[in-house]
Amino acid sequence: MLAMAITEPGGPEVLAPSEQPLPSPRPGEILVRVHAAGVNRPDVQQRKGAYPPPPGASPLPGLEVAGEVAEVGEGTGRWKVGDKVCALTNGGGYAEYVAVHGSNALPVPAGFSMREAAAIPETFFTVWHNVFERGALKPGETLLLHGGSSGIGTTAIQLATALGSKVIVTAGSADKCEACLKLGAVRAINYRDEDFVQAVKDETQGKGADVILDMVGGDYVAKNYHAAATDGRIVQIATQKGAVAEADFARLMMKRLTHTGSTLRPRTIEFKGGVAAALEARVWPLLEARKIAPVMDRAFSLREAAEAHRRMEEGTHIGKIVLDVV
Amino acid sequence: MLAMAITEPGGPEVLAPSEQPLPSPRPGEILVRVHAAGVNRPDVQQRKGAYPPPPGASPLPGLEVAGEVAEVGEGTGRWKVGDKVCALTNGGGYAEYVAVHGSNALPVPAGFSMREAAAIPETFFTVWHNVFERGALKPGETLLLHGGSSGIGTTAIQLATALGSKVIVTAGSADKCEACLKLGAVRAINYRDEDFVQAVKDETQGKGADVILDMVGGDYVAKNYHAAATDGRIVQIATQKGAVAEADFARLMMKRLTHTGSTLRPRTIEFKGGVAAALEARVWPLLEARKIAPVMDRAFSLREAAEAHRRMEEGTHIGKIVLDVV
Repeated sequence: MLAMAITEPGGPEVLAPSEQPLPSPRPGEILVRVHAAGVNRPDVQQRKGAYPPPPGASPLPGLEVAGEVAEVGEGTGRWKVGDKVCALTNGGGYAEYVAVHGSNALPVPAGFSMREAAAIPETFFTVWHNVFERGALKPGETLLLHGGSSGIGTTAIQLATALGSKVIVTAGSADKCEACLKLGAVRAINYRDEDFVQAVKDETQGKGADVILDMVGGDYVAKNYHAAATDGRIVQIATQKGAVAEADFARLMMKRLTHTGSTLRPRTIEFKGGVAAALEARVWPLLEARKIAPVMDRAFSLREAAEAHRRMEEGTHIGKIVLDVV
Repeated sequence: MLAMAITEPGGPEVLAPSEQPLPSPRPGEILVRVHAAGVNRPDVQQRKGAYPPPPGASPLPGLEVAGEVAEVGEGTGRWKVGDKVCALTNGGGYAEYVAVHGSNALPVPAGFSMREAAAIPETFFTVWHNVFERGALKPGETLLLHGGSSGIGTTAIQLATALGSKVIVTAGSADKCEACLKLGAVRAINYRDEDFVQAVKDETQGKGADVILDMVGGDYVAKNYHAAATDGRIVQIATQKGAVAEADFARLMMKRLTHTGSTLRPRTIEFKGGVAAALEARVWPLLEARKIAPVMDRAFSLREAAEAHRRMEEGTHIGKIVLDVV
């Protein structure tokens, strides 16, 4: 089969077409004939050599796909050949075929294209776990979301709004802010022009945000402690501006903040299966009713994976970038 | 009545005897004839002017007492005149009488002296909430405790050990380490001689501590992130070495740590009443069976409050310092 491999750590140009053996599904796994694959920031980090795949994972990039079940392993329960699925992969999504655990796959939501379906798993699993499980966002509470126009951001705006929360975002341009407001954010802060701490206080009558989803880190950590409400939860899912930073831990204590975080990829199959079940119960009905949908930026062909990475690294995209495989 | 007041912010000498009006219990409150009052670090901070009482609280120092009920307000339910109680106060414990909310008082455990009973509330409320509620320490898990020989520390060692956890402590002298081991700690690290991160790794087969109770802050924050296990919880209850510090938030994220904290004093009467109920159900039986008991350092008379503060600030005490009032 054809796959895009990382020939060596480096720029987008190190992504190259490569002939690979067809994966064979192990017990519990299904083989998916990939129609479309999502492109995510961890793929870029992996390509640069900054995010090595965990032991036992495919060295090929690609953490999410949509396609048709081509073969089923032993004990995969609900799935049969020909079923349309979208799934989290353990790497290897930039390929014509990928084996995934059956519990980490979900049916393509009714009415969704394969491109759209491929854009769902990574951000929806990440947002569900971090915002609703780890951050315990409740209806009526306020979510502050950094990177509002990213794949994660556009998913979180829609999901939190649909489930009854008020969403404030930061983003880096007027266009991006506009896109976030259209998706339901009550306030979009252009961080180039405005201090987000003050803007969040203004928008919440001085109270602050109940949950903050942060992928920025660096000096945002100390600012998040200011912008959070008493008993607020701050969930770190990346540290794009820097991992090591200063913060005021007396403030964390006096405000009873909870600062936590997680990464999706190293979690167990069982953990991911649990998130999949929660998504199917709580979020799939919202997708199928078109109350929410992934925001699509652009599609590239599988062979154009390097172009897709360039677009992500330029940072002007709004929503998800995907690769067409079939 | 006689009380010890803070005449102005400053050293121990600013604590002076003062004639004060007898407090009158409001609805829900009981008036306690104080027999003994606990001395705590927040009293020292308040005396220095660094920890002002919250709005509506007594300006007098003293956060815990034991004594007899002298008068009951409306709707205090279980209490009657003559009952022996120990209680959290909202300030005003360094006095012959103090009014406390009935829900924030507990019976003096059977067989306990008034001195011992006065040494219970502040540390037991603090440890219960922060270690078992906020930190969710479970039987079989490892607790790392900084300041093992303090009032908080000696309480946490005994309580966590009695409830099935393994306790590792840091302390600043061989005597203090010895005292901690006698109370049940499996390992006491003299932080002047030894790196606690490495010692915790050694003691846990590289796994790290599941819960860390920290009153130190400063450079301990970054070290705590190293010493914590995956999915570990770090609970900040003071920042004696400094509030503003650097930490690696990618480590927090990759290890899925939860860093939180709290202070007891500003919590609502209802919150404290909930902790009191949990203590009576889970911890009072352990006290009455003498499986655990507060570690007593020294008693001073009420008029010697300045001496008691000097002893606490010297830092050589092990366990609780109390004032005899009757």
